[in-house]
Amino acid sequence: MPPFDPGGPDSGAMKVLALAGGVGGAKLAAGLEAALPGGDLTVVVNTADDFDLWGLRICPDLDTVMYTLAGLANPETGWGLAGETFDSLEMLGRYGEDTWFWLGDRDLATHLLRTSRLRSGESLTSITRDLGRRLGVRSEILPMSDDPVATVLDTPAGPLEFQEYFVRRGQRDEVRGVEFRGVDEARPTRAVLDGIREADAIVLCPSNPVVSLGPILAVPGVGDALAASSVPKVAVSPIVGGRALKGPADRMLSSTGHESSATGVARFYAGLIDALIMDAADAGEESEIEGLDVRPYLTDAVMHDEPDRARLAREVLDVAEGLSVRPE
Amino acid sequence: MPPFDPGGPDSGAMKVLALAGGVGGAKLAAGLEAALPGGDLTVVVNTADDFDLWGLRICPDLDTVMYTLAGLANPETGWGLAGETFDSLEMLGRYGEDTWFWLGDRDLATHLLRTSRLRSGESLTSITRDLGRRLGVRSEILPMSDDPVATVLDTPAGPLEFQEYFVRRGQRDEVRGVEFRGVDEARPTRAVLDGIREADAIVLCPSNPVVSLGPILAVPGVGDALAASSVPKVAVSPIVGGRALKGPADRMLSSTGHESSATGVARFYAGLIDALIMDAADAGEESEIEGLDVRPYLTDAVMHDEPDRARLAREVLDVAEGLSVRPE
Repeated sequence: MPPFDPGGPDSGAMKVLALAGGVGGAKLAAGLEAALPGGDLTVVVNTADDFDLWGLRICPDLDTVMYTLAGLANPETGWGLAGETFDSLEMLGRYGEDTWFWLGDRDLATHLLRTSRLRSGESLTSITRDLGRRLGVRSEILPMSDDPVATVLDTPAGPLEFQEYFVRRGQRDEVRGVEFRGVDEARPTRAVLDGIREADAIVLCPSNPVVSLGPILAVPGVGDALAASSVPKVAVSPIVGGRALKGPADRMLSSTGHESSATGVARFYAGLIDALIMDAADAGEESEIEGLDVRPYLTDAVMHDEPDRARLAREVLDVAEGLSVRPE
Repeated sequence: MPPFDPGGPDSGAMKVLALAGGVGGAKLAAGLEAALPGGDLTVVVNTADDFDLWGLRICPDLDTVMYTLAGLANPETGWGLAGETFDSLEMLGRYGEDTWFWLGDRDLATHLLRTSRLRSGESLTSITRDLGRRLGVRSEILPMSDDPVATVLDTPAGPLEFQEYFVRRGQRDEVRGVEFRGVDEARPTRAVLDGIREADAIVLCPSNPVVSLGPILAVPGVGDALAASSVPKVAVSPIVGGRALKGPADRMLSSTGHESSATGVARFYAGLIDALIMDAADAGEESEIEGLDVRPYLTDAVMHDEPDRARLAREVLDVAEGLSVRPE
């Protein structure tokens, strides 16, 4: 891989559109922001995990990306806020409420502002942009749609909404199928379509392909616009050595008829992406991936810390630049 | 004053209806609950201070009474919860919001539950009863009405909503007039009317006559039902030595054409109450109060601690019992 030059005129002016779910996506987005000092970054975020709790609209992936880019995320968990407290939740428990969701006191402020503004008729896109600005986020964070979409998982325990499966039941259920309820009626936003049109490179962050990036690609018009774009499209595999770095992506890929491997990820995105950045642990899968018309790039794909994020992001940009300079 | 016997059959079976605003009313309500071991207490609470903040419906007086009767109130302030934290509010400030109202993290749980249930169509009466039960409150706490009423104060700075005047501007404005917006359309609840009909004694707690008990008396049907009741009605003066024990009741009485004295309180409630319990500091006003057809009773009317509350409550019940045993 040729060395990436963040000071070059091309990279400096580069506009990158990233697709992200929660923690893994947020980490790479933070790396991209750090690696694009003179360029700019738009992050299109999954909202199919969003749900209502005690009257609040909660958007876990938007919040994870926003808190991470604002430098406020809890470094231990990757989600939630650093130094968070849970006194409201404790009181809700005292009232006898079922307190299965980790609702932090500071996090509540976000939900309160978002919910009251949604009720007053403002779009989720407008609210998300403004909240990010207020926390000092430089990049543009966009929900995949302003219309509600809900991931519902088909499990042996019956249909489960995503947070029910993910948080309340600790991802213990086998996922046989996935439905993005409402996605056929969801409209793409002008902001997302503009972001895709203006991008010099598109990055699919290492998020769960099935339930994090899957919903974004399923929004009518968004998947088509991404496919129609001629700029380099680079995915980073969330599967390393056959296992998900975080969360249930590995089991979910397997149980929904995919393969829990870098090749499985490449196959999931085949036809859309030009390149897959995968971990050196998965060396040996390159030829099969090349057979899918996806260029494999081996690196250390695990982001332990901020330098890792920036390094991986530079490699992603480098691959994208290489693809745009030397098209096949 | 004859000694009060809390173990007697009459007092044990006594049903007391108390009218209360915030801190002073809550303290006496707590005393009444302690003094009525075998009887029962219904507290009808002012809701004209209620307001909306970040989409939450906040009912300061209901909460003060509930937290006090649940034994959870902050003993320093009288309002809010003991050991309260303010992390949500701090985060709202970080978002650039104006954080003038002391919104505690635990307190937020109450507002969340109340607001989400109001939005689902449940009445404030039903929600208030249930939240009280969940916190272990033995007495019945009732909002004065399920319909919204808003106290608006006429001041040199223009019309001010109550919390705006009380909290945000620190009660610094002269109050020239008071309007209870919406009160003419507010309906009395079945629960409040039943409570009045079933009461053996009615107690007007030492709350601000103008803006705390005034709105309750102004709800159509409530003032009439109270006036029509033949049971003893005893008020406790919130004015001691010409000054309000807490809050702006003294200045507000004066500036709205009343008198900031025990006599002024008696005159405010004249025609409704049979007796006024007042502080010994106001000795000398008895004959003028008697001239209003109100029996004055001198005692220590200041509640510093729980024994004070119980003692004053026993004196209130004693006066009520004396009035019912020996009607004029």
